[in-house]
Order: sequence, then structure tokens, then C-alpha cells
Amino acid sequence: MKKIINMPENFVNETMEGILAAYGDKVKSLDGDNRILLSNYPCEDGKVGIVTGGGSGHLPVFLGYVGDGMLDGCAIGNVFASPSAKKMESMIRACDKGAGVLCLYGNYGGDNMNFDLACENVEFDDIETRTVRVADDVASSPIETKEKRRGVAGMVFAFKIAGAAAKMGKNLDEVTNLAKKALDNTRTMGVALSPCVVPRVGVATFSILEDELEIGMGIHGEKGIEVSKMKTADEIVDIILNRILKDMPLANGDEVSVMVNGLGATPLEEQFIVYRRIHNRLKDIGVSVFMPHIGEFATSMEMAGLSITVMKLDSQLKELLEYPAKTPFYTNHNK
Amino acid sequence: MKKIINMPENFVNETMEGILAAYGDKVKSLDGDNRILLSNYPCEDGKVGIVTGGGSGHLPVFLGYVGDGMLDGCAIGNVFASPSAKKMESMIRACDKGAGVLCLYGNYGGDNMNFDLACENVEFDDIETRTVRVADDVASSPIETKEKRRGVAGMVFAFKIAGAAAKMGKNLDEVTNLAKKALDNTRTMGVALSPCVVPRVGVATFSILEDELEIGMGIHGEKGIEVSKMKTADEIVDIILNRILKDMPLANGDEVSVMVNGLGATPLEEQFIVYRRIHNRLKDIGVSVFMPHIGEFATSMEMAGLSITVMKLDSQLKELLEYPAKTPFYTNHNK
Repeated sequence: MKKIINMPENFVNETMEGILAAYGDKVKSLDGDNRILLSNYPCEDGKVGIVTGGGSGHLPVFLGYVGDGMLDGCAIGNVFASPSAKKMESMIRACDKGAGVLCLYGNYGGDNMNFDLACENVEFDDIETRTVRVADDVASSPIETKEKRRGVAGMVFAFKIAGAAAKMGKNLDEVTNLAKKALDNTRTMGVALSPCVVPRVGVATFSILEDELEIGMGIHGEKGIEVSKMKTADEIVDIILNRILKDMPLANGDEVSVMVNGLGATPLEEQFIVYRRIHNRLKDIGVSVFMPHIGEFATSMEMAGLSITVMKLDSQLKELLEYPAKTPFYTNHNK
Repeated sequence: MKKIINMPENFVNETMEGILAAYGDKVKSLDGDNRILLSNYPCEDGKVGIVTGGGSGHLPVFLGYVGDGMLDGCAIGNVFASPSAKKMESMIRACDKGAGVLCLYGNYGGDNMNFDLACENVEFDDIETRTVRVADDVASSPIETKEKRRGVAGMVFAFKIAGAAAKMGKNLDEVTNLAKKALDNTRTMGVALSPCVVPRVGVATFSILEDELEIGMGIHGEKGIEVSKMKTADEIVDIILNRILKDMPLANGDEVSVMVNGLGATPLEEQFIVYRRIHNRLKDIGVSVFMPHIGEFATSMEMAGLSITVMKLDSQLKELLEYPAKTPFYTNHNK
């Protein structure tokens, strides 16, 4: 696997230097520490802060959503590794505008532990925090133990909903409850066609044959539910959608948003072929799609594959989804 | 090479069906022919039409730039194959709002021939047209024969500049001259790390070893200027930038826009590592960057690699570049 990089140990820092060089008017590092990215867009005092964090290697997740109407801050670790509790703590402090901070992040052991510790520490200084863990990957645990599920691309919808709620002036509990509501109505599942390579490790995260497909793969190469022979786009959509619909049934008249998320090496053309099938399948059961998101939203570097996310909407979630947002990596251009 | 597709012969049509299903409120097909995409955004009579066309397999090029403040229409061929003159002709007619139409497209034999024929045909009906061919790839021909160069990612800047000029109400000759001015100041060069596969062909467009890099490769797999051993990100930037700067010298105080364009399978992280070096190199010679574009703008399906485009700016080009634009694939979020 060839990579366009310099020294593997500089991968994350040089990526961050590039992002700050490109978008230094829109985002900034915290006191020169480029593993902590903060929004540089104007922000009113009294707004609830929304923060996240996690390992690198998933751009635009996580830091790509720092900006106006989404996240206020993000702490970044090494590739696929949690940032430290100390960095999370500094970030939470920097993002508190007097109304408390919601920590909204993917359900992974290291991130959970470090965020919990960071929250404890800032609470000594009367910074109120809430925690919502994204656990949208239906392939990673059965519904009976859904609290064990991993967080994947569905977190982008959660960032959008919570960010809009905070920007509208809702309080910490309201924002927290809306993030939970969005996630209660969000399911994701993915497939991988090829692995990726963590730069400092230098070997593929998993192996797969040239005619195989891994169904239900996680975004760090976590094992899926089945390795099968390669399938058509329509068959892949059906496998994913059937599983999502079993987990979160939809009925005639329901409205959803859909995210087709390329994992890094999957052409846009293929993502639209996939979207076509999703659209038709949902139409067949009387479900309409509002503001589809098709592109790269949560990647695994050069991994080939994609995930499909469905978020069931009501009028409140629709309003929050279409509320304006602007970050260097995400613009709500549907408005 | 695995692809998430159905029947290879349905690749383009199903991609288009997906795009129309997702964005049917923003773009539309012409009379049910989904190889011709038109803007569905409100458009005033008397605006100069801007159209393009070319082979499929390069999303968001070309049709991704159909929308408000960029293109009015686009005719699409099969993968890497020109659309017919007949389709171009229908599209030009549909995009004429009484002020004439600029045909702005990449310099490839089939497209040149078909657009020329289409323009001749519509002129019988008093639709005035102008032609500007994008030929920004410095690796494809020496400066002495620069009219032979291929059109690559620089065309996106040309679409943006011409689209803004038309939207501002400039006339056909003014819009044409601004498109030419943008392109006179635009240079691109790319590298490829892996080939892509045309779905109906089923074999790679070229072959390259696991430790090699092709410098100056075209976006259809056209031969580059050198196959070398794999290089670092900084070395790749230096090779490209040196060639661009030799072709279009920059001086202390100059201002440029830069596009780092992933060809399909190159992670965003790597694109920012590349941008970092470009930014630093330009800073060293006193050149500043306005509105960098980093992401996938003109791809070759699953090809790994990237291109770098530099557009030298003056105040007029800056104003046109930052003028609002909105398409399903491009939002001028820098405003």
C-alpha cells in the first residue's frame, strides 16, 4: 500500500499543519497544540459547547466538523488511538462558554475512559458536562446489547443535530436530549473491500481476498459479521438495509435522511449507484428521503468500502438537520 | 479491482439515476435523457449559458458543477468517452437564455470534434456560442505547444470563474475572456500511484509496481513523463511545483489559489500533508494562498494519486472565485 506521506511518525502532525495552513481563519489550535482544534467562527457567550475527540485517520471525522453550527472543539489522537484525558480536559475548558459542554463521541474504550476522566476533572471547576456516546453500528452488537455498539458515520448526523440545537440557544439538557433522540433514530452498517495501513505500523489492518467482501466491518478494521464472495451494489444495499430495517422498522409515510459514506477509496460513482438502490427500496415501502448525504464523511484512510446510515426524522429533527452549518469540511448547502 | 456496481454496462446510467434521485430538486435531466444534466436552480433570462461535457468516471467533474453560479448544463458520455455531438447540441439549445452559450471543456479529441459540430449546428438557429478549451496539464506537452495540453482539474477553477462572471450579468465575450484569463493563469500536474478500471473493459488502464509512482499521469491513465520509485509527499510536491513554477513563474507578493485534488483513492490526510508543503514552499517565495481547495474535484474513479493546480490571481479573479456558487457537489463556503 503506497502512501503520499513523509516520515510515518509525522503523519498526524503534518496533516494538522496542512489543515491549519489551509483553514487558519476558520479553525485554530489551542495554545499551539495542534492536537486540539477549536472553532474560530464567531460564537456567542452562553452557547452550549459541543465537543468530540478520537483517533486520527478518519477525515473529515472528527475535526472536520469543527465550525459554525456543529462542533466547538475536537481533540485528536494518533491514528486510530484515543487522545489523552488531559487534552480532552483542556479542550472542554476552552469550549465552555458558561452553559456547559456536551461530549459527543464514538463508543470506543479509550475514548470513553479518557472523556470520563476529563469530565470529572473539569467538574471540579464547575464546568457542567454531559456525555452522549455514539453507538450506531448495527453490525457490532445485537439490539439486546446495543450499548456495546461502535460509533461510526451516524455521529455526523448527531454532530449536526446537537450543533444546531446549541446554536439555536437550547440549554445543556435540551441539547443532550436532542443528540440522544437523533441517535435513537440512527442506524449504520458498512462493508469493506480492502484494508488500510496505519502509517507507523506499516501493515494492513486485515486481509481479504481479491474476490471477497467483508460485511459489517468497523472503521478501524474491526471484524465484521461475514466474509462473503463479492456482491453487486444492489445486493450489498439489500443486506445492509434489511439489517437496519430489522433494527429500526420504518413504515409507509416515514421520512428519513440517508448517508452513503465512502470509506476512503470508493469512487463517488459507486456511492450514487448505491444511493439509487436505497432510494428505490425506501420508495417501495413509502419512505421518503430528506437531505441525503453522499460522499466521504467518516473514512478509514485508503480503505475501500462504504457505510449506509439511516436517520428517522420528525419535524424537530428535520429543522435541526437543515439548520445552517459551516465548517471547512461540511456546508449545509441544502438550504 | 473490486467495484461496488451492478452490470458494468449500467454503470453510467445507474450513477445518473442516483444523482437525480438525490438531487432532483437542484438538477434535472433534459426530457428524460439522463446523459444531459441541467441546472434546476432559478436562472434569469439574459444570462450567458455555461456548458461543458465529457466522459464519465471523473465525479464531481463534470456534472457536479451544474448548479447556481457555475454550469448551466453538462452532457455526459460513457466512461472516459465523449458524449455525441447531438447530445451536446440539445444541451446547448436548452442552456441558451438569449445571451449565447460558452462551451468550456477539456482539450480532448472527441470532445473537441463533437462540441465543434454541435456549435455549428446551433448557430444555424442564431444561438451564439464561444469555445474555450481547458489545457492546464503542464506534463502533457511543453510550453511551446501548450495548445496540445490536456484539460484536468484546473477546469474547476475555470467553471467557477466563468460561472460567476455569467451570474454577474457579463456578456458572452466578457465571460469568454474571463474564462481564458483564468486558464492563462492556471497550471496543473498530477501523479498516479495506482490505475483504475473502466467497468465495461474490466482491466486496469495501466500497470505500475507496488513501489512505483507515475509522474505527470493523465486522468484517463495517459502516460506521464516518468515512472520513478515511490517518493515522499514533500518530494512529490517539489517535483510538481517546480514544473508548474517553471511554466508560470510567481514572484514575491503574488497571490494564488491552490487546488489539491485527490484522484479517487487518496485519503484526505495525505492531501493535507501535500497542501502543507505547497503552502510552505509558496510562503518561502512570498506567495500567499487565497481560498485553497483540498479534496476530490476531478477524479479517475478508484485511481490513487493526486494533482496540484495553481491559479494566479488578481483582484478581478479573486472576486469571481469567491462569488457565491451552489451545486450539489460544490459550495463556495469560503464566503
